[in-house]
Order: sequence, then structure tokens, then C-alpha cells
Amino acid sequence: MTRALGTCYYPEHWPEDRWADDAARMRAAGLAWVRIGEFAWSRLEPEPGRLEFDWLDRAVDVLGSAGLKIVMGTPTATPPRWMLDKHPDMLATDADGRPRRFGSRRHYCFSHEGYLSECRRIAGLLGQRYGADDRIAAWQIDNEYGCHDTTLSYSDAARAGFRDWLANRYQSPDALNRAWGNVFWSMEYNDFGEIDLPNLTVTEANPAHVLAFRRYASDQVVRFNTVQAAELRKWTEAPLIHNYMGRVLEFDHYAVGADLDIASWDSYPLGFLMDRVDCDAATRARYLRQGHPDFQAFHHDLYRAVGRGRWWVMEQQPGPVNWAPWNPAPLPGMVRLWTWEAFAHGAEVVSYFRWRQAPFAQEQMHTGLLRTDNADAPALEEVARVASEIEAMPDAGTGRAPVALVFDYASQWAWETQPQGTDFDYFNLVFSAYRALRRQGLSIDILPPGTSDLSAYALVLVPGLMTLPNNLEAAIRASGGRVVLGPRFNTRTPDFRITDPLPPATDLIGSRVTLTESLPPETRIEVQGGGALIRWREHLAGAARTALEASDGKPVLAGDRVQYLAGWPDDRLWDRLVADWLDAAGVDRLDLDAGLRVRDTGTHRFVFNYGDKPAFFEDTGIGPGGVHWRPLA
Amino acid sequence: MTRALGTCYYPEHWPEDRWADDAARMRAAGLAWVRIGEFAWSRLEPEPGRLEFDWLDRAVDVLGSAGLKIVMGTPTATPPRWMLDKHPDMLATDADGRPRRFGSRRHYCFSHEGYLSECRRIAGLLGQRYGADDRIAAWQIDNEYGCHDTTLSYSDAARAGFRDWLANRYQSPDALNRAWGNVFWSMEYNDFGEIDLPNLTVTEANPAHVLAFRRYASDQVVRFNTVQAAELRKWTEAPLIHNYMGRVLEFDHYAVGADLDIASWDSYPLGFLMDRVDCDAATRARYLRQGHPDFQAFHHDLYRAVGRGRWWVMEQQPGPVNWAPWNPAPLPGMVRLWTWEAFAHGAEVVSYFRWRQAPFAQEQMHTGLLRTDNADAPALEEVARVASEIEAMPDAGTGRAPVALVFDYASQWAWETQPQGTDFDYFNLVFSAYRALRRQGLSIDILPPGTSDLSAYALVLVPGLMTLPNNLEAAIRASGGRVVLGPRFNTRTPDFRITDPLPPATDLIGSRVTLTESLPPETRIEVQGGGALIRWREHLAGAARTALEASDGKPVLAGDRVQYLAGWPDDRLWDRLVADWLDAAGVDRLDLDAGLRVRDTGTHRFVFNYGDKPAFFEDTGIGPGGVHWRPLA
Amino acid sequence: MTRALGTCYYPEHWPEDRWADDAARMRAAGLAWVRIGEFAWSRLEPEPGRLEFDWLDRAVDVLGSAGLKIVMGTPTATPPRWMLDKHPDMLATDADGRPRRFGSRRHYCFSHEGYLSECRRIAGLLGQRYGADDRIAAWQIDNEYGCHDTTLSYSDAARAGFRDWLANRYQSPDALNRAWGNVFWSMEYNDFGEIDLPNLTVTEANPAHVLAFRRYASDQVVRFNTVQAAELRKWTEAPLIHNYMGRVLEFDHYAVGADLDIASWDSYPLGFLMDRVDCDAATRARYLRQGHPDFQAFHHDLYRAVGRGRWWVMEQQPGPVNWAPWNPAPLPGMVRLWTWEAFAHGAEVVSYFRWRQAPFAQEQMHTGLLRTDNADAPALEEVARVASEIEAMPDAGTGRAPVALVFDYASQWAWETQPQGTDFDYFNLVFSAYRALRRQGLSIDILPPGTSDLSAYALVLVPGLMTLPNNLEAAIRASGGRVVLGPRFNTRTPDFRITDPLPPATDLIGSRVTLTESLPPETRIEVQGGGALIRWREHLAGAARTALEASDGKPVLAGDRVQYLAGWPDDRLWDRLVADWLDAAGVDRLDLDAGLRVRDTGTHRFVFNYGDKPAFFEDTGIGPGGVHWRPLA
Repeated sequence: MTRALGTCYYPEHWPEDRWADDAARMRAAGLAWVRIGEFAWSRLEPEPGRLEFDWLDRAVDVLGSAGLKIVMGTPTATPPRWMLDKHPDMLATDADGRPRRFGSRRHYCFSHEGYLSECRRIAGLLGQRYGADDRIAAWQIDNEYGCHDTTLSYSDAARAGFRDWLANRYQSPDALNRAWGNVFWSMEYNDFGEIDLPNLTVTEANPAHVLAFRRYASDQVVRFNTVQAAELRKWTEAPLIHNYMGRVLEFDHYAVGADLDIASWDSYPLGFLMDRVDCDAATRARYLRQGHPDFQAFHHDLYRAVGRGRWWVMEQQPGPVNWAPWNPAPLPGMVRLWTWEAFAHGAEVVSYFRWRQAPFAQEQMHTGLLRTDNADAPALEEVARVASEIEAMPDAGTGRAPVALVFDYASQWAWETQPQGTDFDYFNLVFSAYRALRRQGLSIDILPPGTSDLSAYALVLVPGLMTLPNNLEAAIRASGGRVVLGPRFNTRTPDFRITDPLPPATDLIGSRVTLTESLPPETRIEVQGGGALIRWREHLAGAARTALEASDGKPVLAGDRVQYLAGWPDDRLWDRLVADWLDAAGVDRLDLDAGLRVRDTGTHRFVFNYGDKPAFFEDTGIGPGGVHWRPLA
Repeated sequence: MTRALGTCYYPEHWPEDRWADDAARMRAAGLAWVRIGEFAWSRLEPEPGRLEFDWLDRAVDVLGSAGLKIVMGTPTATPPRWMLDKHPDMLATDADGRPRRFGSRRHYCFSHEGYLSECRRIAGLLGQRYGADDRIAAWQIDNEYGCHDTTLSYSDAARAGFRDWLANRYQSPDALNRAWGNVFWSMEYNDFGEIDLPNLTVTEANPAHVLAFRRYASDQVVRFNTVQAAELRKWTEAPLIHNYMGRVLEFDHYAVGADLDIASWDSYPLGFLMDRVDCDAATRARYLRQGHPDFQAFHHDLYRAVGRGRWWVMEQQPGPVNWAPWNPAPLPGMVRLWTWEAFAHGAEVVSYFRWRQAPFAQEQMHTGLLRTDNADAPALEEVARVASEIEAMPDAGTGRAPVALVFDYASQWAWETQPQGTDFDYFNLVFSAYRALRRQGLSIDILPPGTSDLSAYALVLVPGLMTLPNNLEAAIRASGGRVVLGPRFNTRTPDFRITDPLPPATDLIGSRVTLTESLPPETRIEVQGGGALIRWREHLAGAARTALEASDGKPVLAGDRVQYLAGWPDDRLWDRLVADWLDAAGVDRLDLDAGLRVRDTGTHRFVFNYGDKPAFFEDTGIGPGGVHWRPLA
Repeated sequence: MTRALGTCYYPEHWPEDRWADDAARMRAAGLAWVRIGEFAWSRLEPEPGRLEFDWLDRAVDVLGSAGLKIVMGTPTATPPRWMLDKHPDMLATDADGRPRRFGSRRHYCFSHEGYLSECRRIAGLLGQRYGADDRIAAWQIDNEYGCHDTTLSYSDAARAGFRDWLANRYQSPDALNRAWGNVFWSMEYNDFGEIDLPNLTVTEANPAHVLAFRRYASDQVVRFNTVQAAELRKWTEAPLIHNYMGRVLEFDHYAVGADLDIASWDSYPLGFLMDRVDCDAATRARYLRQGHPDFQAFHHDLYRAVGRGRWWVMEQQPGPVNWAPWNPAPLPGMVRLWTWEAFAHGAEVVSYFRWRQAPFAQEQMHTGLLRTDNADAPALEEVARVASEIEAMPDAGTGRAPVALVFDYASQWAWETQPQGTDFDYFNLVFSAYRALRRQGLSIDILPPGTSDLSAYALVLVPGLMTLPNNLEAAIRASGGRVVLGPRFNTRTPDFRITDPLPPATDLIGSRVTLTESLPPETRIEVQGGGALIRWREHLAGAARTALEASDGKPVLAGDRVQYLAGWPDDRLWDRLVADWLDAAGVDRLDLDAGLRVRDTGTHRFVFNYGDKPAFFEDTGIGPGGVHWRPLA
């Protein structure tokens, strides 16, 4: 597997006589890949059935002739305006019951059968024309599923689909009523046709109802992707890819990824810092021009799992973007650093979004590798430097990480359905564990909940997993390493009932959670020796040996090889726990200068300075935005 | 009148073979009462007209045989799904114009005639079957009127009902136009059918329009209750009860209570602290596991008034709940403390919600007296202790309080209609006075605005009463004690016009309010001697003697026996004022350790420690969560 | 031009037998003008076509006989209830798609042709009856256009009108697609009838689409005003006026003003401080009873420009109002101070709102010159004092200001369309420059963007102007004074594309903006010598001489006579910059005590103390709320 660079290009945005020069400059900068086509439906089919692929043929010619490998996108994230006349009810409906409108992108409901057919049709047409073309070396299906809150739709199409989905799952209304406990508040149904979507209820809907809808909605994304993947596979043997968006958690990425060959994601470190890393203003100020030091790494590790080892960064931020609450410029060196961090996590390709900044439409403030006036933008020089560096070190493999962390989309939905504390969020819990591991220099694997083999890991953390799959339970039992479960581990059946026996409802742990508390931000449960539980606290009773106590004498951690963590640790407690677990497991950990992060590949140790000050790693000084690597012994 | 304990039980939630054991354990814990049936409509009538009461007969048999007295609920807070097919327009509509949906509870509009008939029918059927049954010792109508913002509905049914209500009140559009001042902004109507509900206007609607709608909405709740009460009285002589919810202020509880025999309310001290006591984070942290020390007491005193002396706690929190922003567990002892505080205020019954925690549906995180696995939950032991204690002290009377506070629902609506300062709220004003009285150890009566006899009170406070009823005016004149009126006393006619003469528009006070100011939170009007006015300040002119001045020399308090308070005191000023008034009135007050609260019954003085530290009352040390009582001299 | 006072009066609100006394008291207080009629449609036409003007004739008689000059208002801001039966679709629709309702005011959509015809009709009827009447000395059209967010309507009428407007502007869908860059995200249209309003899109709409809609919406206000103005001019030669509301920025006031003779605005200093000056709590506390010292002055200067020299304050706050978040009373003297500040800026008339406080309807808490009980309110005495003072100094001219500031409505919409930083706002940027000038004692002219002559100014500031009109470019070139452009100067074409060449895309400046950054509130770019850039920062490259550098060495200010400011200065940096510019331009500046502000007329220097403490101006002590003037040398 080799490392390579790419960019995202929109030939339809530019005069045709500029394409050849663009292609030549891409090659000169060391780019090997170019992605095209993913928003071009109105140019491919200006009116229903009138196809115009000639211009795309010519673009493929120009780019291919320059030696670029092409990723061809299906344009289904941007149906043209005429599509709405054919399918007036294809729009998603928001939770307030308002259909969303044409005029931007992702204006479709995943449940709409008519639009799904149109997508199958356009994917087939593209596959037929370009599927056997060697210059098309990969395909991207749609663009950023779920972005702009588009997974959940409360449309008529979604209601109809949900009823069918429920009928299929439960077979009879009685079975559904029993599973959901609908006797509570007289919510019983006599017919699947009586069941509505769980929005606009007077007070909260039954969480079993909400979670079923969340599962349904995720399944619709999977189905949407499967249909296009199946169509494309009729025509091509090139790998299929989707580009996921950072911290979009409304559908199961593992399940979508199962139909694809490569996972990719769109990495915007500065946009994310402002927009979706939940951090305080001081953290935001410290990492203003570098991005959060762990947020991209988390997603790199996640998509390595989603892609079963094969993954890309399909869109890499090259400068200020247009869409975050504030949009600063990166520190010099950061574009290179971000790229190398991706490669160190095993990325095959890092592709910059976008080639040239567009002077029009929604993203006109989104920088590219070229400015609107066609001059080089600041990132281009860093890109060229990385290109020459990867020539010298082309291997993109990743070493096996000694520790693993389980991340589960269904648990995200379950926590959202029943947070029990208004500011609680599963992602933040898992990310707090990830950050703690990374602060101590660890390379980490992220695992799906259905993992059946943990034997390679000295330590596995499973925070917040609401429902325990059978094969994970077996894997934990069979693994020789330390495993830490909880909080909120296996507290719910798949139908969102409290388990019987009480959680964690497994003999992996000899104790039971007899009471659960959620706590406001001003409250802490101090832990003996330092640190505290925040937000969440469980009361454990039973035979499990207490390994750590709170200052009120109640267990914080219990068990032996497999332990249960009975709350949400603050950062200090995470640091203590991680250090103890790693030491007990015999895993080396590092005492890193502020701002430094480390990642091991199969051959090298990489060190990145995300700080705003120079730092030392062993004997090497590393400036802000600096990257350092050395061979692993 | 005797003290007793009870619980809320849902036989339909559990296998029938478990009922007898449940009943036996209730009795063993010292419970005398059990409430059933109030959400069971889908089981009583699974399809329109198909009645299935046999299971309820059997439940009554089992519970009654165990010696439990039963409160039978009418199930009208949870119409079954088929009801919406019969009455598709029965749902309430929110202020944004969206009909609310099936899938939780309270999904009906109080104005809907068709649903009202259904409720009369089911109440009649229940009354007919159980009205003469001795085991049914009380009835509860519906459940928590107004909870989940369900009093105000902007539906077609509400619009039609409001027009009729206005036609009945004003007789002609001209009369309404004159009363409301509709000449202002050309808002005049030529026909009652032209009048819409006051939502979604371009800027604020006429406050007379808004307040009329608020009165109408309250009247619909009263009517809804009256219909069921009248139906039940055909069949039963057992007392009728409704269980009100804490700080639900959108309808007139006194008016609903007038059709009932006993008032009850649902007391969730920890949920309320997080959810509806407007306190800062420090207060929240201090009382995290105890609840606010005055919030329950206020409601106890309020419902003693609503029930004209007879009142219960129908639902008492036994542990963490599911619905507050955060849900901690109570301090050991608090369930007992809360129970005794209720009894000390005169409660006849305290009933715990719920018997066994449900592992399914919306309240699966709501603890009960039993856990989901049928083991005892922590509260059960405290309940049993109280049961044995009340055997030793069965009397539930309350002593006559020396001071009284007038609380008026219509003033709440009037302040909401015209707050004049965005963060102002009538409840908070009244509650600030109540807290000040209670900080000095007082037992307090809360009085409705229509009170006609104040002769028993040495001090009566009437803060914020916007419109003065005739009989209250006469009662103030006739009373011998001190009476403090204001701020905002009698400033509006019943049609929401400024009074003529100027407020307070009564010769109870020799001065007039010539100017009113509202103030942002950062501003204070310092008062001579300490403390300040906050939020609200009135300028007084006239003959009334100035009793206290602000540092700018303007009156803060004026009058003699009857005084006028020209603003909203901060806590320090309330403390000064209350001390002065009590001393002048010859009422003893106490200097209480932090966290302590006192309540006198007819026979005993009770002392409660709501603090998180031990405290002393006279010579007795009381731990956190502790209760102490001694006979009154 | 002479100074005069007036008031706003509603004869329809009061018994007819009180009119004469009111008129006499107005005259006694020194009032010369009275405005009537602007909300009286339901009394002028109680049913469609049934006209009742007799009462208004009598009111004109009574007021005219007393010697008052009358401003007659057209009542089109308050269509009567029957109008909605004639035109059920005349209501504006909000951005959520909800039609707004009858029950307050301004309940119409500017795009509705039917309602526009009704307004032409009623204006014609009024003009016909009173146009030649000498007692009617001026006319007001409608009332506070755009108040209560009424400029932007998403109604069917607006959609239809917008499509026509686009068809007229672009002639073909292809031209529009090219202009807007609709190839981006396949947003291309084949027909103008496919174009929707830019609300409720999935993510942001194309900014070109949004800005076109904003221009359209502004044009509709202009059209609405033009129709009435044209109708009235058939019947009258009296001057036509509209009363604009403070900080209402959704339509182009200059364009509306072009059809009128006099501009006026409604000045509520205390309401505005709470409601629409974006200041912190400390500033709010300091100016609680005085209002912000620069907010009114800014509007005075703005409306002098809108009225091409002729302007009034049509409504002047006389005491607490009803509509702000909090509503304190003014400091004694402030009503006089506010009045004199207006006169010092060249106002011809200051008219108090309102004569007598109404005891009913929406504004019952809005004070007037009389109380509801007909007694004098506190302001009346100050009004009478001003009346006698202006007798002694009747001239209302204003001197030519040495400095000017360009203010452009389209730039406000452009910044709102693409703020690029969530808390950024064009008005606040311009106002920060205005405040800095005024802190140094300057008298300032505000100029529209189309200004073609700058020769009179030693210094002109042009912050944030997104698109540069040709004549302004020529004027800058021709002017001899210093001109400061930027930030964000001329960065967009009229179709909202990035300019080519790069901004500022003019050879007025020898450099280009190569990169733009927006910054969160916690971030500052320090500037050499003190102060900082906040929120916004541009990277300049090119030949322009650097006049000031940031601490990172990048230019903050570049150029010579014409300079470019590459960011948003904090107050300290503004102060430095303004001082430097004024010194270089040879303009005197003042070192003013805190709270003092200065304004020069053609003959006098006026000094106002907005502070809460006494202050000195040269040798004169001025108390809080005090006004001082001396002849100019």
C-alpha cells in the first residue's frame, strides 16, 4: 500500500480551455489523484432524460492524459431542480414537520422510493459509460451522507417506510406493544398503520419508539448506498468509496462501509474545532490554527475500522473554510502536519478540497490550493513538500495498536434517546477516553461493537456501550488482555428495556448497577487519590472486587482482568486510570510535552506538535506545526 | 384526620400472578393506600366500545383483600390510539400552529367537545362499576392537568370555544372593542367570528386579548374536571381528587379544586430543583440531594388552600427520576424528611410514585419503592420507618399559621402577559416572599385572592396581585393585622386596563403609583439601611406616610397598618422587612441555623435539616436529612 | 429653517369633549406640531367602502383652531380586520413558512398587489379630503416600515414578485445561472418559475440567491412608499415624510427617502440601549437612564443624509416605554438633552410620543407627556423648558462636518448573507468607527454609498463596503482628503461573486487581499503600538506602503492618502487610528471627559453629558443629563 496525494476538481466550474493547465499544475505539485463529478447532475442531465456526458468524457481525457487517476463521483447528493417536479414528495421533512427546500444540497429523503430509483438509474448510466475505463481508478457514491442533519426525515415516505420496517421486525402489533411496553400510558397500537414517527409528541415519546426510528433511519442510508454500490459493481471492478463527514453519527458507518471497498472521510481540523469539538474557549484559543490534536486522529482510527484497513482522507482542509462559526487560517506547516498524521494512521490517499477556490456560490470563502485569481494559495507549497517526502517514504501501512476502544453508533442514538442528563453525549464520553490514551502517547485501534477477536490487545476500553452483542461478550471472555466496561454497559436490551438481570447483565462482571445518577456540571464525586466522576455515577453492588473507591466509599472501579467503571471520569481521573491500566498491562506510555502527539506505523514513530510553542520529543526540538519521525526499533 | 402512606401501582404492567405478592409487600411496608387505573384506557377499552373491566375487577379484589384502600383513577390523560381516528381534531395545537401527536400522554385539547364526551362516558362507566364499591375509597380524575404545557392549545376547537366564551362575556363586538381598547392600532372587530387566538401575531397581541385567552383556557380545564366530577358523583360518595403538578400555573387550581373534595399534588423535590426552581448553580449544588428547602413547603401550603384544608401528596419522589435535566439520588433520610414535612403541613396521605420501577417505556429511569428486579429500592426502608412513626403520632392536623400570603393564578397570567421586564415572573416574586418568611421560622398559610376573612392573621403579604377582588378589599379593611400590598397591586381592571384612579386604586393606601420602572439584572436601587430593590420599582406620590426610603430618597414602603411596597426586594431587604413586620405584629421569629426549616402543627413543632451539614435547633443536633419534633407548649 | 416641537396624538382614543383642552395644553407647553391619524383606518372605514371622515374633520378643526400644525398619517400600517376577508393572502409569511396573523400591526406583505391597491385608495381619499387644507402642514406615509421584522416576507405574493423581479433583472434563466454560479451543487434553473424563496433550504442557500432576495425585499418597501407618495402628490404640496425606526436595516432608507421631502425617525434612547445597542452589561448599567451616547447621534446623522438635509425626530421617548426587555425611567434632564442633541444635529422638529399615555392595549406601559389620569407626566416640564429655549435660539441648521462615514444598506445585507463569523455585523463595524470619531469630539456626516462628491471632507471612512459604486470610486479619486477603505472593501460584484482582480479590485489601493480570516471572540491580533484586530483579519499583498503592522509583521494599514484597513479594530486601535488620521488631516480633536459628547452646528458648539457623574468641558461644569452650548468662534 502506498501513500499518495490528490485533490477535488470541478471541471464544470471552469472554462474548458483551462483544464489542461490545471491538470499539469496538479501533476507538478505531486498530486496523483483527482476527484470529479459528484455534484454535476444538472450538467449530466439538464432535463429529464436528456444526457450530456460529452463534456465529462473530455474532462476525463484531459485529466487522464496528464497522468492523474480519477475518482468518479455519483451526483446523487445534488438532484437537479427538475427532479422535484417528477417527485414533489422526495424532500426530507424536519422534526418540526417542514419539508426542506431546493436551493442547496442533500435535498432528498433517504426513504423515498422514487428518488432511489433515479439514483440507481444515474449510477448505472455512469457505470455503463466509465466503469471499464482504466482512468477511473475509484468511485465515490454520493457525498457526505447525513451532513446538514439529513439522516433523520419525518416525511410521509419515512412514515410509510418505518411502518413496513416495524411490521417486518415485529410481525404483529401485539409483539411490538409488548416489546416497547406500550401498555404504559395506553400507547398500544392495533395496527402498524397507526404508528407515527416519534416527533411532535406532547412529551417525550417512548424511547423504544425513538430508538426504533433511529435504527430505521440508519438502515435507509445503508440501503441507499447499497443500491448504488450494487449498480456500479455491474460495470466496474474499481474500488467503491464514500466520503463520510466528521462527527456525523446518525447512521451506522460500519454498516455502510460493509458494502464498500475503501472508507474515506472529510477532514477539516479548524472548522471542526469551532463547529463540533465540544471544547471551552481556552482550548479553542490554544488550537485556533492547528485544530484539536485528537479529533482528526480519532476519525482516522475510526475510518480505518470502517474501511477494514483501507481508508483515505477524501477532503483535506487547505486553509480557511466558509462554514464554521469562525474561520481562521492554519499555522504554517499545519497542512503538511495534518497530511502526515493521516498517513501515519494508515491513509492511502490524502486529497485536498479543493483545487481552486470558487469565486461564486456557497463556498466562495472556502480556500483551495489555488486562489480565485489562479495564483498559488499558501497550502500548495506544503502539499508539494509532502509529495516529495512521500516519494522518499511511500509505505502507508500502520502498526498494530496495543490498545483498542469500542465505538458503537447505536449507543450514540441510545444516549441521545435517553441522555438522563441534558449535557451528556456518548461521543464525548468515548472521545474523552480516546484523548486520555493519546495524551500518553498510545496508538489506538477503534473497533466496531461486533468485534469478535480482541486477542491482539493488551487493553480494551468499552465506555458507554448500551447493548452488548453476543460475539463481543465471547471475545472479551476469550481475550487475555485487560478490558474495561462501563459506564452504562449493556443496560438495555435491543428493544430498549432495562436488562433482566440488572445491568451489566453479564457474568463478565460479578456486580450489578443498582442505581444510576446523573449530575449537573457544578457537581463532582471526588475519587480517592485524585480526580472525580462527573456527569454520571452508578451504584454497584455484588461480588466484584473494588479496585478504586470514591471518597464516599462507593466503588468507582470493580473487577479483576475485566473491570467495570461506574461513572464518567474527569480528565484527571482518566489520566490516572489509563496509567494504571497500561502499567498493569505492560504497555509503554510516554510523558509528552504539551501539544505533542505520537503515532506509530509499522516502521516509524511519528511525532506531531499541535501546540503553539516549540516542544521537545526525547532529544528533538519540534516547532509549532512541526512533524518528526524516526524508525521504530 | 389521620396520617397514612400509599403508593401508585399499575397492575396492567405486571403479570397477574405477581399482584398478590405486591399487595402483601405494600402492607408489610406500612402502606394503607394504593392508586390504580389512571393510564389504563387502552386496556379498559382496547377498541371503541369493547370494554374489558375484568382484569381491573381482579386487581381490585387482590388489593382490597390485602386490606389496601384504593384510589381509582379515570384514564382520561391517556386516550388510546383509536380515539384519534374517532376525533382526528382532538389534539392540542401548540403556539406555532403545530398539532401535537399521539405517542406519549395528555394528547388532547381541553376545548374539544367530542373528547370531553368520551371522558364523561368512561368516567360514567367506571363510576357505575366501582362507585359503590367500599374498596374504592377515593377517586382521582385525570392526571396532572396542564403538565407538559397542555393547558394552552391553539386548535380549531379552542378558537371556536374562545369565540363563544367571548360572545358570552361581552355580548357584542362593540362592548369587547371598548373593553379591550381595540381602537388602538385599528384592531376593532365587527363580529365575534373575526377573532382569532392571540398567537403568531406580528408583534405582541393586545394584552387584554391575551389575558382573555388565558382566562378562557383556565376555564376549559375547570369545565373538563367538572364534567367528570359530576358524572362520578352520580355513582359514588367517595371523595374526588386531582393530582396537581408542581409549579403548573396555567389554570386556576382553586377553581378546579372547588369541584373536588381533596387536593393533592405530585412532589418531586430533586426533579423540581433542577427543572423549575429558578436558582443559581451554587444553590443547586447545595441542595442537590435534598431539594429546595421551601419549594415543597410552598406547594403543601398552596394545596391545603386549594383543598380547603384537605390535601394529599399523591406522588412522592422516592429516588432519582427520569425527567429532570439531571437526576441525582436523594441523601439518605430525605424520603422520610419529605414525607414528614408534608405531614407537618397537614397532609392526610403521602403516596409514593411508584411501587416498582418499570423496565420499559418513558419512565424506565424513574425509581420506585422496588427495583426492576423486584428487590427493595433504598426508599422502602425509610417508608417503613415513617409508617411506624405515624402509628405513634397519627394526627395530621395543622396549626393556624400566624402569617398569610395571597397567591393568585390570574396574576401569574397577567404578569406573563405583560412582564415589562423579560426576566420577571409573579411566582418568583411570591416565592421570594415565602422564602423570606420561612427563613425566619414561620408557618404560613397561602390564601386565594378571593379570601374574605383575614382576621386570624397578624401579618398578610399580598405581593404582585394585579387585580383586587371586592371581598379581599373588604377583608383587608376589616382585618386587625398588618397587611402589605404591592408591588403592582391592583394596577389593572379585569379587562386589563390601567385603573382609574391610578393604582393601587383603593383608599387602603393614601398614595398612587405615578410611574413604574423595570430594571435589568445588573441594576439595583439601594435602600437606606441595607438591601435593595431589584427588577421592579414604582414611584409613589400621595399622602401615605413613608416608612422606608431608597437611597435616592423615594419611598420604598408607605402607609401604616396597611402598607404599600413599591418594588421587588432582594433577599436581604426581604429579611429586614419581614423582621420588622413580624416584630411590629408581635409574631415570634426564629434565628435558624443554615439549612433548617420549621413547621408547626396544632400539637408539635417540626424541624427539618435541608442542609448538607449537621445543624443545631436549640439544644438538638440534627444531621443532614434529619427530622426533629417536639410538642408545642 | 427653524426648530420646533410637536407630539403624537390619537383623537380617536379619547372622548371628543377632551380634544380642545388637549390642544390648549399642547400650545401652552410650547408645542407647534401634532401628528394624527396614522393608525385610524378602522375608524375611517369601519366596513369596506363605508367612509367616516367626519370625526377626523372635527379633530382637524379643534387642533387647527388651537394653532397647531398637523402631520396627517396614512393608516396603512394597520389594515382593519375586514381587509383580511377581502385579501386573505395579504399577510406576510415568516421564514418558517407561517403566515403572521391579525391582532397587532404591520400585518401585511409588501409584495401583495391587492393590499397595495387598498393603500393607494385610502391615501387618495385622505389626500382628496385634506390635501389642500392649510392646517395639514405635512404628511406621514405608513409607520415604521420594517419594524417587527416585517420587511422580509416568504409569502406566495413575495415568491411571485421575486420571480418577476429576477426575470426583469436577468432576462433568461441561463443568465441568472451564470451570474449566481448555479452550476455549483447542480442548482441550475430552466425557468424563472422554478425559483423559490431562499428559506428552509437544507443548508445555506446560494448567497447570490439570498442577496437578490434581500434587494428584492428592499425594493418592495420602496415601491410601497412610492405608490402612496405619488397618490398624495396629486392632492397636496405639503412635504411628505416617513418615520423610520432605529436600527431597522432590512430596506434601503436612502431609496425610500428619495421619494419623500423630509426624513424622520423614532428615537427611543432607553429602549434602544436595552434592545438594539449591542453592548455589555457594564455599559448598559452606566447609561441605564441616559441611553447610549452615540446611538441617537448616529441616527440623527444618518437621517440627515436620508432626508438630504431635512429631517425630524417624529417620535421622541419621554419616559419609560413598554417594549424593551427592561424599561427604566430617564434621568431628570435627559428628555431635554435628547431634544437638544437632535436640534444640534439639524433636526427641524422633535415630536414626543405620545401626548397622553393610553390606559389600554399594547402600549399601556408607554409613558407620554400626560399620565393616564391626565396629570402632567415628568417630561412635560422639560419639554416646556426646551420650548422656551428654542424661542431664544430658533435656528436649526447644522455646520458642515469635517469628517464623513459611508453607510450602506446593501452591505448590511451582504454581511448578514455571508458573515463568515457568527457574531459579525456590518452595522456594528460602522458604529464602532462612528463611536471612535465621536469620542474625540467630532461632528460627523454620514454618506450614502452613491455619494459623488467628497471634496468637503478632510477624512472619510468607508468600513465594510462590500461593493464599490462607480461614482464613489471617482469621488474618492477626486477628493483631496484622506480616505480609509476596508475591511472587506469591494470584495463582491453586484451579483455576489468575488471580484476579479482580487479585492479591493480598484487601483485606489496598490495591494490585494489574498486571504481573509474570521476570529472567535477570545482571539486578538495584537497591533504594534497597542490595540488589536478582532473578529476579522485580511492578508494584504502588493505595492501599497505599509503604514501600520500587526505584531506578526503583517500589514494592518496600507497606502498613502487613500489607505486600506485590513481588519476590524478594537476600540483602543480605533482611538489610535482616528487620532493619527485626524492629526494628519489637520482636523482638531478633543480630549473629552468621560460621558461628554460634542456637536457643532453652523453657529454653536453643543456639549452633552451622557455620563452619570458631573464633568468639565473647558471651564464649564456639566451635570449628568446636562446640556451646554456656546457660540462658535
